[in-house]
Amino acid sequence: MGLMTNERDPAIRGEAAIIRVLAPLAQGFAGAFGLQDDCALITPTPGTELVLKTDPVAEGVHFLPDDAPEDIAWKALAVNVSDLAAKAARPLGYLMALSFPEAPSAAWLSRFAAGLAEAQACFGCHLIGGDTDRRPGPLTIAISIVGEVERGRMVRRGAARAGDAVLVSGTLGDAALGLALRKDPALAAAWGLSPAEVEHLRRRYARPEPRLALAGALRDHASAAMDISDGLAKDLARLGAASGCAARVRLADVPLSPAAAKALAADPSLAQRILAGGDDYEILATVPAARAPAFPAAAATSGIAVAQIGLMEAGTGIVIEDRSGQPLALDCTGWDHF
Amino acid sequence: MGLMTNERDPAIRGEAAIIRVLAPLAQGFAGAFGLQDDCALITPTPGTELVLKTDPVAEGVHFLPDDAPEDIAWKALAVNVSDLAAKAARPLGYLMALSFPEAPSAAWLSRFAAGLAEAQACFGCHLIGGDTDRRPGPLTIAISIVGEVERGRMVRRGAARAGDAVLVSGTLGDAALGLALRKDPALAAAWGLSPAEVEHLRRRYARPEPRLALAGALRDHASAAMDISDGLAKDLARLGAASGCAARVRLADVPLSPAAAKALAADPSLAQRILAGGDDYEILATVPAARAPAFPAAAATSGIAVAQIGLMEAGTGIVIEDRSGQPLALDCTGWDHF
Repeated sequence: MGLMTNERDPAIRGEAAIIRVLAPLAQGFAGAFGLQDDCALITPTPGTELVLKTDPVAEGVHFLPDDAPEDIAWKALAVNVSDLAAKAARPLGYLMALSFPEAPSAAWLSRFAAGLAEAQACFGCHLIGGDTDRRPGPLTIAISIVGEVERGRMVRRGAARAGDAVLVSGTLGDAALGLALRKDPALAAAWGLSPAEVEHLRRRYARPEPRLALAGALRDHASAAMDISDGLAKDLARLGAASGCAARVRLADVPLSPAAAKALAADPSLAQRILAGGDDYEILATVPAARAPAFPAAAATSGIAVAQIGLMEAGTGIVIEDRSGQPLALDCTGWDHF
Repeated sequence: MGLMTNERDPAIRGEAAIIRVLAPLAQGFAGAFGLQDDCALITPTPGTELVLKTDPVAEGVHFLPDDAPEDIAWKALAVNVSDLAAKAARPLGYLMALSFPEAPSAAWLSRFAAGLAEAQACFGCHLIGGDTDRRPGPLTIAISIVGEVERGRMVRRGAARAGDAVLVSGTLGDAALGLALRKDPALAAAWGLSPAEVEHLRRRYARPEPRLALAGALRDHASAAMDISDGLAKDLARLGAASGCAARVRLADVPLSPAAAKALAADPSLAQRILAGGDDYEILATVPAARAPAFPAAAATSGIAVAQIGLMEAGTGIVIEDRSGQPLALDCTGWDHF
């Protein structure tokens, strides 16, 4: 629907009016002061540390102009919460800076706020502050999130060791395939997908689900973790580089949804898109070999499937083996803005 | 200079290269992990709370395309630090999301980083995390800052009472006049300003100085405070509305620099620009009458002048009296994006 306004749905007038629509999202968090102060206040829980992240999303880059306002809002918050999930942290609150190319309609803003309300109820956090401005360029939602974790227990990116098992949560590639279907619906027939399978992939793109329930298992078992936002290939390479290790994984062990598996069978070149397309928002974790069985068991009690896909090794660089054991030649290694 | 690249100064290649230029800004803050983890970690000082704010700046809205990269960086951080200063908080660290319309040149980024280094050394904080992306629209720097304050001592916006004295730090209107001079240098002659006075106003626009040194005086004496970013008229109205009070101030008591006083004498209509132009980044504070003398004394020991400009009153709305005691009719009440 875009931000476009018309006679029946006029543009909202004034920053104060925007804040009134968003203020209910701050209810229940004392230090948000109903969005009526200049700053937000967080009183740390004794024995915890604060975990912080900012991951802005922009129209045309991270979401599409005709995405539903509720989906845009969900995704803007979910991509930030996903980072906390990988660190074994619980979200507390978020600051949100909104940049509009033109004043949004009251209906658009109301649907956007509804999507945020749904997301923050799901993730257990509140809007605690922010800013709105108007300027040329795409609609941008810059969220900075704050979470808490027991002191000394944040799971790092750079602490994997050679010999650790490499595991991922859920299934990979769904969102990248969902985006491809959004851009070219004819692919559904080419891949032989049912309407339900198309809807599954579409929803995985539109509504990423941060794996917050995995926090306990990660905290207790993982040597390192990060969320997969730019594709397994690139993010595993980052984890390996930060840890001073190499990694070897097998495509055959990468967990796929039935829809993604069907698409890959129809078009084996989709391995590229599945491994490097991004937007998965699943967790990539490494676990010392001795704990490799305990981690999936702990994850399962939280209702999240994790699958071992390979091993960390001494050295540098990552290899993803195809079904015949040959290294896959990926013609890119994930999204880079520059 | 803009971001424009040329043969001698090529575009920087890859997000990793950008992070390498920025990583030195994270040195000295353990929880920044050298910008090599997904999230930053803050270990709260016992007895403190965290104060958070986001205030993004964009080219063409908050700074000019030909501003020096060092000045853009300084301002992007200073406007956030200024909010913490008004809350009596000390800055700890900041997340920074950079959005470029095109890859910056290595020289531009290096000068931008130098400006940040200068600012954060001055303000006592570090870059602890962030994000970079490329998309259409203006260069945008979205900083979210975290500070700390003794538990229960954050100075609120909405706690002023009728009868409290209204005070401001420093001098007002300089930055708004400096911006006007940037856009129309011929005004310098019309206002009868010396080159040194022009430079004073230009610098007040380019390099706002957050009043961090005022924290102790605010914490000990102020009933309410906020920084003045959108002009005294609008920000005083906000403080009054949040506190459920009216306010009455006298233009004659508003502290002006010699340069601003000279300009106002030459063109009395500049009162509008001085009171509603914004970009002051001075502190607006209210102080119970009994402490009204102690606050300026405490501020003076920190090297910051504060001046009483009026009183909070029962009721709603604000009045700024001109030199004859008549309410000034301000034809706008400060910057609003919508």
